[in-house]
Amino acid sequence: MPASVVEDFGNGRSGLEGARLLAGGTAGPSVLRPLIAEVLDSLAEGAGERCGPLPRGGPSAVARRVRALVPDALPESGTGPVPALRTLVRLLAEGAADPADPLCAAHLHCPPLAVAVAADLAASALNPSMDSWDQAPAASELEAVTCAALAGLVYGPGGAADALMTTGGTESNQLGVLLSRERHGPGVRVVCGENAHHSVRRAAWLLGLAAPLTVPAPRGVLNPGALARALEAAGARPSEPGRYLVVATAGTTDAGDLDPLPAIATVARRYGAQLHVDAAYGGPLLFSDLLRERLAGVEQADSVTLDLHKLGWQPVAAGLFAVPDGAALRPLDHRADYLNAGDDSEAGIPDLLGRSLRTTRRPDVLKTAVTLRALGRRGMADLVERTCAAAECLADLVAADPEFELRSLPTLSTVVFRPAGAGDGTVAGIRRGLLTEGSAVLGRASLDGRLWLKATLLNPHVQPSDLSALLKLVRDAAGTHGTGQPHDTGWWEGPAPR
Amino acid sequence: MPASVVEDFGNGRSGLEGARLLAGGTAGPSVLRPLIAEVLDSLAEGAGERCGPLPRGGPSAVARRVRALVPDALPESGTGPVPALRTLVRLLAEGAADPADPLCAAHLHCPPLAVAVAADLAASALNPSMDSWDQAPAASELEAVTCAALAGLVYGPGGAADALMTTGGTESNQLGVLLSRERHGPGVRVVCGENAHHSVRRAAWLLGLAAPLTVPAPRGVLNPGALARALEAAGARPSEPGRYLVVATAGTTDAGDLDPLPAIATVARRYGAQLHVDAAYGGPLLFSDLLRERLAGVEQADSVTLDLHKLGWQPVAAGLFAVPDGAALRPLDHRADYLNAGDDSEAGIPDLLGRSLRTTRRPDVLKTAVTLRALGRRGMADLVERTCAAAECLADLVAADPEFELRSLPTLSTVVFRPAGAGDGTVAGIRRGLLTEGSAVLGRASLDGRLWLKATLLNPHVQPSDLSALLKLVRDAAGTHGTGQPHDTGWWEGPAPR
Repeated sequence: MPASVVEDFGNGRSGLEGARLLAGGTAGPSVLRPLIAEVLDSLAEGAGERCGPLPRGGPSAVARRVRALVPDALPESGTGPVPALRTLVRLLAEGAADPADPLCAAHLHCPPLAVAVAADLAASALNPSMDSWDQAPAASELEAVTCAALAGLVYGPGGAADALMTTGGTESNQLGVLLSRERHGPGVRVVCGENAHHSVRRAAWLLGLAAPLTVPAPRGVLNPGALARALEAAGARPSEPGRYLVVATAGTTDAGDLDPLPAIATVARRYGAQLHVDAAYGGPLLFSDLLRERLAGVEQADSVTLDLHKLGWQPVAAGLFAVPDGAALRPLDHRADYLNAGDDSEAGIPDLLGRSLRTTRRPDVLKTAVTLRALGRRGMADLVERTCAAAECLADLVAADPEFELRSLPTLSTVVFRPAGAGDGTVAGIRRGLLTEGSAVLGRASLDGRLWLKATLLNPHVQPSDLSALLKLVRDAAGTHGTGQPHDTGWWEGPAPR
Repeated sequence: MPASVVEDFGNGRSGLEGARLLAGGTAGPSVLRPLIAEVLDSLAEGAGERCGPLPRGGPSAVARRVRALVPDALPESGTGPVPALRTLVRLLAEGAADPADPLCAAHLHCPPLAVAVAADLAASALNPSMDSWDQAPAASELEAVTCAALAGLVYGPGGAADALMTTGGTESNQLGVLLSRERHGPGVRVVCGENAHHSVRRAAWLLGLAAPLTVPAPRGVLNPGALARALEAAGARPSEPGRYLVVATAGTTDAGDLDPLPAIATVARRYGAQLHVDAAYGGPLLFSDLLRERLAGVEQADSVTLDLHKLGWQPVAAGLFAVPDGAALRPLDHRADYLNAGDDSEAGIPDLLGRSLRTTRRPDVLKTAVTLRALGRRGMADLVERTCAAAECLADLVAADPEFELRSLPTLSTVVFRPAGAGDGTVAGIRRGLLTEGSAVLGRASLDGRLWLKATLLNPHVQPSDLSALLKLVRDAAGTHGTGQPHDTGWWEGPAPR
């Protein structure tokens, strides 16, 4: 970067002084170094201060703490970088629900790998924007090769398969529904199980389509027979293909269950329906030689959702939307003269605008590319297998304990259970009580007409002793607060925050 | 984090060894430290290797380099974290179009502030997800106070104004059109100038609406008289309010021009039309006492797009979507039992799902909150003013040079110009030639029926000498390659890449 110090616009500060504010260029890393040291110290201090998986005291205590430290989010004058980082990074760490803590196991909310987090820093510092080649020369090419490799994981390597980076399963599912609409017009009808992710319904709404035809899924998975009956009743037939889009789920949010993909693909084909598979959660089983057969059939889908910020240990966002042939993405092509003029494209400048519905776009691919290079497919498989094994261990502990009821053996890494004999209100109260105490973050799932506790394990390094500790917390909470008392949410108003 | 080393699932590695892979918890920062040292070294080395604003040789050379270093993006075995970071971060830096280089001035692609980049690291490491309180206790509250403050910048402080964090102007514009559709049904028609951002048209398409009614804008801004005539001709009337949504632009991508907002607001009101203002580029003028009057009228809009990854120096993404009253966001409310069950909401757990169309969502607010605290409103104003002053300086240099033609004085920080007498083909060729040489990144704009070079200045520390150097590069390129030769794109096939 030319370092001219001749004169300056504005307030007379020298350009070199000013340039110390920026993260980029050859000078950026030395500007970043002390600031990042402050961030790392503040992260460690904040985590130490928290002393558990999340802060004590519940939402009101956290809100008070934030508002006390940030009485004015847009002050007239600034504190300078280091004090601002110290205060707010500490606050964020102290007030985090940290997925790296084994007792934080509610959601598909993974503890990110350090290597991915470190790589992501480079994305922030260089700030490539993925909407035109001249904002992201190497980043856009790295995205192309990484997306092709990941699409090959789904559809087999070496073919025409391609994938787009997305903000997550919600955007990927939306793309699946959108491409279906563009192939077959706005009359296309989504057909999904009751167990499908809420984003499927939201996508239909957003895109101006009729609400999905929902097939009851009393056992938590989409039954192929029930799907066939629903398509039959709706008048679907192979002579009029494409009027319906079946959305199947490989890894439900509530229980980690897998819809039977081969049979669903057969039914979809028989009725001339398109097929999208939401494998946001279960997709990374494809890394594993041991587990990938559970995803058999996914390669028959017209499009697939897969998230690497779930069973892929990436910081958010690392969503993927895969198709068997990149040509299927053409409805997303879009022209904006300043970004992809025709003569520029003819001259060989890659056109990136059709690779997202966004325009400006962060190179989320970098962290994933670095992770895949660092760990390899086998390293990813190892993490997936260890995580699924941890869920089996937790299920065994639950099943062996007469104080608990296990809903079913885990399919992925989710364990659904409840204190034996507890009413729904008690279950909800236990969860909220643990949240308020700051002692554990557990999820909830409404299944089989009852409310359950849900442990979604995503920490590949969780130990059996951690799982025992988690169960002890639930057992103690259930013991203290009794069972069978519906709607005992008064517990929420418990001890005063520190 | 409990550090049990009792036994392990999987391949016999100890849990503590394994835990060294994760970025979170109290141990995370020390795991991150050496990896981040490698990233910073690689960033510096890559930038040094690049020796300019972007790599030499154009797309084919960059693609060859990437494919040589990444022959297999999903290898069977990994290299481990440090070698993977070294290779790919260096590659990304070496192959970046670095907006911190003063000769990188094509797009609304800002050089991020080091303080924002450092803060963003904490977001990656802690990985809060903004779709439920129990994944982001402090982060969600910090978002609430920061968004309210930024909405107050648009609509005045202390009121009911609120803002959502978005992935950028494209998503914000989409939200503006979506809320209009939800208020008034799918018959709503978008009316915008020819100068509106391409995402407005794309939003209408995505949401299943008719294509926008486009008002000619031969001077690059939306003329209120022409808008009134278009609304009149379309049959808009105040007795049937809401059938039309006028979209105005405060800062066009091509020239940084501002539509006359007060007059447009008056016209919209007279015809009972809703008003959305896309101030993705110009919005941050509101930080400045000197410049904010140029945005007068923006507070009359039903919704406003504003990006802090443009004139706000944030790494992508830092989009905002502001409304005068948070109640206007209610159509985005959404229920998913596992994230915002009714009894949890009643018990006081904040419901975050209506704050985005995404589900899983990175806390992009952190970097912005830290930046605002570090710099204050006045510090942001200073950066905005310096950047606009730099554009005035460049325009002066262009105007004083008979070899150049200046299109008009800059309104924000974009300067549109061309070598005097050059044909469109030459202009396009000059731009591509500079890109291929790796010497400068300039944009292009089709305005007044001709093709222009566009310098979008976003580096607040650019010096007059940098701007002179930029003009010299263009002058030399124009001299070497002649003028008036239409479509001389053969230059593209120029010197072999290094």
